[in-house]
Amino acid sequence: MENLRVVLVATRNPLNMGAVARAMSNFGALHLRVVNPYEKAFREARSAVGASAVLRDAEECATVEEAVADCALVVGTTAIGNREIKHPLRSLDKAGAALRKRLERERVALLFGSEKWGLSNESLSYCHWLVHVPTRAEHQSMNLGQAAAVCLYELARGKKSFAEGTKRRAAPMETVERITEAMLDCLQRSGYVAARSKELAEEKLRRMVRRLTLDATDAEVLLGMMRKIQWKLGGQK
Amino acid sequence: MENLRVVLVATRNPLNMGAVARAMSNFGALHLRVVNPYEKAFREARSAVGASAVLRDAEECATVEEAVADCALVVGTTAIGNREIKHPLRSLDKAGAALRKRLERERVALLFGSEKWGLSNESLSYCHWLVHVPTRAEHQSMNLGQAAAVCLYELARGKKSFAEGTKRRAAPMETVERITEAMLDCLQRSGYVAARSKELAEEKLRRMVRRLTLDATDAEVLLGMMRKIQWKLGGQK
Repeated sequence: MENLRVVLVATRNPLNMGAVARAMSNFGALHLRVVNPYEKAFREARSAVGASAVLRDAEECATVEEAVADCALVVGTTAIGNREIKHPLRSLDKAGAALRKRLERERVALLFGSEKWGLSNESLSYCHWLVHVPTRAEHQSMNLGQAAAVCLYELARGKKSFAEGTKRRAAPMETVERITEAMLDCLQRSGYVAARSKELAEEKLRRMVRRLTLDATDAEVLLGMMRKIQWKLGGQK
Repeated sequence: MENLRVVLVATRNPLNMGAVARAMSNFGALHLRVVNPYEKAFREARSAVGASAVLRDAEECATVEEAVADCALVVGTTAIGNREIKHPLRSLDKAGAALRKRLERERVALLFGSEKWGLSNESLSYCHWLVHVPTRAEHQSMNLGQAAAVCLYELARGKKSFAEGTKRRAAPMETVERITEAMLDCLQRSGYVAARSKELAEEKLRRMVRRLTLDATDAEVLLGMMRKIQWKLGGQK
């Protein structure tokens, strides 16, 4: 992401600027450039409480030309809508791999236009190709902050995740079988299983318990539970 | 996406509700459920100019339990942060394919917590597993609307078809919850769970039962078993 330059062209809403900067920070894209922003909006966004370092360090450029001058690839984003597209166009999920590859070795600019009009034809003329997020045709275009989040997520894809959940180790069959036996006993004591149908019930139960995909810890807990119930049922026989 | 239920739990900010609904509409996810929203926020979001049909048609639920009752898979979203994760956890880009596959044949609930606290442990205990969007560890969590947009983008991603082995239809959460309740009752009656530790035990048990990956038939059978044992324990109290 170090090679990515996110370029906001003629953005109007300070909340949207803040949202884009926040998404950038989330996904580790730290270089923002703003072209011809509504001055008041830019000032407000920058001075907002909790404004990110991304926004504080944003570079202001007079033109799109200046904003993409040091980049090797320039990609515009578009909602398509009714406009006639004169560029090669790829959907984001197809373009992701290509973009990630280019980012490995050279600077890439990703352009977002104004909330109302998107990128002008003049701005688009600086782009090598365009990317769009595949959304329902009949619906309004995406919110700017959300579109940026989705694009950055795609570009950051495939990185190793830092977080790990609980690791599960499968239960040994010995425990699983003890659970089966304890359950069967409970079911007999409670009258769920009649004496003469015991064998069939046992087989069914054994298969079922194995479909539960118990992990080792859960299996021990479940066995303890069944034992306790078993004891209670037994003691009162 | 017809099978997806997006569930917002205790959302505070009407703008965020609107943003989630907009992203849903963009990606063709039309079924929103809200649990315990801040009433004022929900009213405001609904009556906002340009509020989407998604928001107008949102179902209001009193509890998470109610909101996921007709779903076969319940997935929570988490920013992780400092919290200890007691669930299996997958990053969104890894989980996408699995989620899309499940959505082809059964209802899936995707839960988002409040802007400030995320999902409570109680809400999380209704989840089979958790998903997180891989972002920089040092940064604040994602904005709710952006997180939703990223998740929905991933779920709407270009589908591939997979050959399938044995078809198992997952148990509806309503049945799974009834099993949980029956087990808890048995465990209390048998003395496995003491009165004062009931709540903690309930959460643990709820998570455990959801790790069992019950199919619909097995779930009915298991519920019948637990009911019988419950009856027997109760009758002898």
